[in-house]
Amino acid sequence: MRLTNNLQFNEKGLIPAIAQDADTGEVLMLGYMNEEALRRTLSSGEAWFYSRSRQELWHKGETSGIRIKVHSVWKDCDSDTLLIKGKATGPVCHTGNKTCFFQQLTKQEIEASHQKEA
Amino acid sequence: MRLTNNLQFNEKGLIPAIAQDADTGEVLMLGYMNEEALRRTLSSGEAWFYSRSRQELWHKGETSGIRIKVHSVWKDCDSDTLLIKGKATGPVCHTGNKTCFFQQLTKQEIEASHQKEA
Repeated sequence: MRLTNNLQFNEKGLIPAIAQDADTGEVLMLGYMNEEALRRTLSSGEAWFYSRSRQELWHKGETSGIRIKVHSVWKDCDSDTLLIKGKATGPVCHTGNKTCFFQQLTKQEIEASHQKEA
Repeated sequence: MRLTNNLQFNEKGLIPAIAQDADTGEVLMLGYMNEEALRRTLSSGEAWFYSRSRQELWHKGETSGIRIKVHSVWKDCDSDTLLIKGKATGPVCHTGNKTCFFQQLTKQEIEASHQKEA
Protein backbone atom coordinates (compact mmCIF):
# COMPACT_ATOMS: atom_id res chain seq x y z
CA MET A 1 0.00 0.00 0.00
CA ARG A 2 1.38 3.38 -0.91
CA LEU A 3 0.70 6.50 1.10
CA THR A 4 -0.50 8.25 -2.03
CA ASN A 5 -3.39 5.81 -2.28
CA ASN A 6 -4.98 7.60 0.62
CA LEU A 7 -3.83 11.17 0.11
CA GLN A 8 -4.43 13.70 -2.62
CA PHE A 9 -1.16 15.30 -3.61
CA ASN A 10 -1.57 18.20 -6.02
CA GLU A 11 -0.41 18.38 -9.63
CA LYS A 12 3.10 19.16 -8.37
CA GLY A 13 3.11 16.13 -6.07
CA LEU A 14 2.72 18.29 -2.96
CA ILE A 15 0.24 18.47 -0.10
CA PRO A 16 -0.04 21.43 2.29
CA ALA A 17 0.81 20.59 5.90
CA ILE A 18 -0.19 22.84 8.80
CA ALA A 19 2.10 22.59 11.82
CA GLN A 20 0.41 23.24 15.15
CA ASP A 21 1.68 23.25 18.73
CA ALA A 22 0.20 20.10 20.25
CA ASP A 23 -0.30 21.74 23.65
CA THR A 24 -1.24 25.37 23.04
CA GLY A 25 -2.98 24.90 19.67
CA GLU A 26 -0.94 27.74 18.20
CA VAL A 27 -0.58 27.45 14.43
CA LEU A 28 3.15 27.59 13.75
CA MET A 29 3.56 27.44 9.97
CA LEU A 30 2.25 26.02 6.72
CA GLY A 31 4.66 23.97 4.65
CA TYR A 32 4.34 21.58 1.73
CA MET A 33 5.28 17.92 1.75
CA ASN A 34 5.89 15.55 -1.12
CA GLU A 35 5.49 11.85 -0.54
CA GLU A 36 9.12 11.47 0.54
CA ALA A 37 8.90 14.35 3.02
CA LEU A 38 5.83 12.76 4.57
CA ARG A 39 7.53 9.37 4.71
CA ARG A 40 10.54 10.87 6.47
CA THR A 41 8.29 12.80 8.84
CA LEU A 42 6.44 9.64 9.83
CA SER A 43 9.53 7.50 10.18
CA SER A 44 11.74 10.05 11.97
CA GLY A 45 9.15 11.79 14.11
CA GLU A 46 10.47 15.19 12.97
CA ALA A 47 8.87 17.42 10.36
CA TRP A 48 10.27 17.31 6.83
CA PHE A 49 8.93 19.50 4.05
CA TYR A 50 9.57 20.10 0.39
CA SER A 51 10.94 23.57 -0.27
CA ARG A 52 9.14 24.97 -3.31
CA SER A 53 11.70 27.78 -3.70
CA ARG A 54 14.77 25.55 -3.45
CA GLN A 55 12.97 22.57 -5.02
CA GLU A 56 14.43 20.13 -2.55
CA LEU A 57 13.59 18.11 0.52
CA TRP A 58 13.94 20.19 3.64
CA HIS A 59 14.44 18.81 7.12
CA LYS A 60 12.91 21.61 9.16
CA GLY A 61 15.71 23.10 11.25
CA GLU A 62 18.63 21.95 9.12
CA THR A 63 19.84 25.57 9.11
CA SER A 64 18.29 26.96 12.31
CA GLY A 65 18.51 23.83 14.41
CA ILE A 66 14.86 24.31 15.38
CA ARG A 67 13.05 21.02 14.76
CA ILE A 68 9.38 20.17 15.00
CA LYS A 69 8.90 16.94 16.96
CA VAL A 70 5.78 15.29 15.60
CA HIS A 71 3.16 13.89 17.97
CA SER A 72 0.43 13.02 15.46
CA VAL A 73 -0.49 13.54 11.83
CA TRP A 74 -4.04 14.14 10.66
CA LYS A 75 -5.61 14.42 7.22
CA ASP A 76 -8.68 16.41 6.34
CA CYS A 77 -11.99 15.13 4.97
CA ASP A 78 -10.79 15.53 1.37
CA SER A 79 -7.38 13.97 2.16
CA ASP A 80 -5.72 16.95 0.50
CA THR A 81 -4.36 18.75 3.57
CA LEU A 82 -2.33 17.50 6.54
CA LEU A 83 -2.26 18.74 10.11
CA ILE A 84 0.91 18.04 12.06
CA LYS A 85 0.53 18.31 15.82
CA GLY A 86 3.84 18.54 17.58
CA LYS A 87 6.30 20.55 19.61
CA ALA A 88 8.96 22.84 18.18
CA THR A 89 12.32 22.94 19.91
CA GLY A 90 12.38 26.76 19.61
CA PRO A 91 10.93 29.63 17.55
CA VAL A 92 9.69 28.12 14.28
CA CYS A 93 9.88 31.22 12.10
CA HIS A 94 13.10 32.26 10.36
CA THR A 95 12.39 35.79 11.69
CA GLY A 96 12.87 34.50 15.23
CA ASN A 97 9.17 34.56 16.02
CA LYS A 98 7.54 31.63 17.75
CA THR A 99 5.07 31.28 14.87
CA CYS A 100 5.17 32.40 11.24
CA PHE A 101 1.73 33.99 11.76
CA PHE A 102 2.80 37.01 13.77
CA GLN A 103 1.42 39.74 11.50
CA GLN A 104 -2.24 40.64 11.75
CA LEU A 105 -3.73 42.21 8.61
CA THR A 106 -3.45 45.93 9.12
CA LYS A 107 -6.28 48.38 9.39
CA GLN A 108 -4.97 49.94 6.17
CA GLU A 109 -5.25 46.64 4.36
CA ILE A 110 -8.76 46.08 5.65
CA GLU A 111 -9.84 49.60 4.71
CA ALA A 112 -8.42 49.06 1.23
CA SER A 113 -10.71 46.07 0.87
CA HIS A 114 -13.74 48.15 1.92
CA GLN A 115 -12.91 50.97 -0.45
CA LYS A 116 -12.64 48.64 -3.39
CA GLU A 117 -16.00 47.10 -2.57
CA ALA A 118 -17.74 50.46 -2.15
CA MET B 1 -3.48 50.36 -2.21
CA ARG B 2 -4.52 46.90 -3.28
CA LEU B 3 -4.54 43.93 -0.95
CA THR B 4 -2.44 42.00 -3.45
CA ASN B 5 0.42 44.46 -2.87
CA ASN B 6 0.98 42.84 0.47
CA LEU B 7 0.02 39.26 -0.17
CA GLN B 8 1.44 36.58 -2.41
CA PHE B 9 -1.36 34.89 -4.29
CA ASN B 10 -0.23 31.82 -6.24
CA GLU B 11 -0.19 31.40 -10.02
CA LYS B 12 -3.93 30.67 -9.91
CA GLY B 13 -4.63 33.83 -7.91
CA LEU B 14 -5.28 31.88 -4.71
CA ILE B 15 -3.86 31.91 -1.21
CA PRO B 16 -4.39 29.12 1.34
CA ALA B 17 -6.34 30.17 4.42
CA ILE B 18 -6.33 28.12 7.62
CA ALA B 19 -9.47 28.53 9.74
CA GLN B 20 -8.93 28.11 13.47
CA ASP B 21 -11.27 28.31 16.44
CA ALA B 22 -10.33 31.55 18.17
CA ASP B 23 -10.95 30.13 21.64
CA THR B 24 -9.92 26.49 21.57
CA GLY B 25 -7.20 26.77 18.93
CA GLU B 26 -8.68 23.82 17.06
CA VAL B 27 -7.81 23.89 13.35
CA LEU B 28 -11.12 23.66 11.53
CA MET B 29 -10.30 23.57 7.81
CA LEU B 30 -8.01 24.79 5.07
CA GLY B 31 -9.61 26.70 2.22
CA TYR B 32 -8.35 28.89 -0.59
CA MET B 33 -9.21 32.54 -1.10
CA ASN B 34 -8.86 34.69 -4.15
CA GLU B 35 -8.63 38.43 -3.70
CA GLU B 36 -12.40 38.86 -3.87
CA ALA B 37 -13.02 36.14 -1.27
CA LEU B 38 -10.59 37.84 1.08
CA ARG B 39 -12.21 41.22 0.47
CA ARG B 40 -15.64 39.82 1.26
CA THR B 41 -14.28 38.04 4.35
CA LEU B 42 -12.80 41.27 5.67
CA SER B 43 -15.82 43.41 4.87
CA SER B 44 -18.52 40.96 6.01
CA GLY B 45 -16.78 39.39 8.99
CA GLU B 46 -17.70 35.92 7.69
CA ALA B 47 -15.36 33.54 5.87
CA TRP B 48 -15.56 33.40 2.08
CA PHE B 49 -13.42 31.07 0.03
CA TYR B 50 -12.87 30.22 -3.61
CA SER B 51 -13.99 26.71 -4.46
CA ARG B 52 -11.33 25.13 -6.67
CA SER B 53 -13.66 22.28 -7.69
CA ARG B 54 -16.63 24.48 -8.57
CA GLN B 55 -14.39 27.38 -9.66
CA GLU B 56 -16.54 29.96 -7.94
CA LEU B 57 -16.69 32.18 -4.88
CA TRP B 58 -18.05 30.29 -1.93
CA HIS B 59 -19.61 31.89 1.11
CA LYS B 60 -18.85 29.21 3.71
CA GLY B 61 -22.21 27.86 4.88
CA GLU B 62 -24.25 28.83 1.86
CA THR B 63 -25.45 25.22 1.69
CA SER B 64 -25.01 24.05 5.29
CA GLY B 65 -25.86 27.30 7.02
CA ILE B 66 -22.72 26.91 9.14
CA ARG B 67 -20.78 30.17 8.94
CA ILE B 68 -17.36 31.07 10.27
CA LYS B 69 -17.49 34.42 12.07
CA VAL B 70 -14.09 36.02 11.68
CA HIS B 71 -12.34 37.59 14.69
CA SER B 72 -8.96 38.32 13.12
CA VAL B 73 -6.93 37.60 10.00
CA TRP B 74 -3.19 36.95 10.06
CA LYS B 75 -0.61 36.48 7.34
CA ASP B 76 2.56 34.46 7.61
CA CYS B 77 6.14 35.70 7.28
CA ASP B 78 6.16 35.06 3.52
CA SER B 79 2.71 36.62 3.08
CA ASP B 80 1.62 33.54 1.18
CA THR B 81 -0.67 31.93 3.75
CA LEU B 82 -3.53 33.33 5.83
CA LEU B 83 -4.74 32.32 9.27
CA ILE B 84 -8.36 33.10 10.06
CA LYS B 85 -9.21 33.07 13.74
CA GLY B 86 -12.92 32.93 14.38
CA LYS B 87 -15.91 31.00 15.63
CA ALA B 88 -18.01 28.61 13.58
CA THR B 89 -21.76 28.58 14.14
CA GLY B 90 -21.74 24.75 14.07
CA PRO B 91 -19.75 21.78 12.76
CA VAL B 92 -17.52 23.08 9.98
CA CYS B 93 -17.03 19.86 8.04
CA HIS B 94 -19.54 18.67 5.43
CA THR B 95 -19.31 15.25 7.14
CA GLY B 96 -20.89 16.73 10.25
CA ASN B 97 -17.63 16.76 12.18
CA LYS B 98 -16.62 19.83 14.15
CA THR B 99 -13.36 20.02 12.21
CA CYS B 100 -12.29 18.67 8.81
CA PHE B 101 -9.22 17.15 10.51
CA PHE B 102 -10.93 14.25 12.25
CA GLN B 103 -8.88 11.41 10.70
CA GLN B 104 -5.51 10.56 12.17
CA LEU B 105 -3.11 8.82 9.78
CA THR B 106 -3.56 5.13 10.41
CA LYS B 107 -0.96 2.73 11.71
CA GLN B 108 -1.20 0.95 8.35
CA GLU B 109 -0.35 4.15 6.52
CA ILE B 110 2.58 4.83 8.81
CA GLU B 111 3.88 1.26 8.50
CA ALA B 112 3.65 1.54 4.73
CA SER B 113 5.96 4.54 4.93
CA HIS B 114 8.46 2.57 7.02
CA GLN B 115 8.44 -0.41 4.68
CA LYS B 116 9.15 1.73 1.66
CA GLU B 117 12.06 3.36 3.44
CA ALA B 118 13.51 0.02 4.58
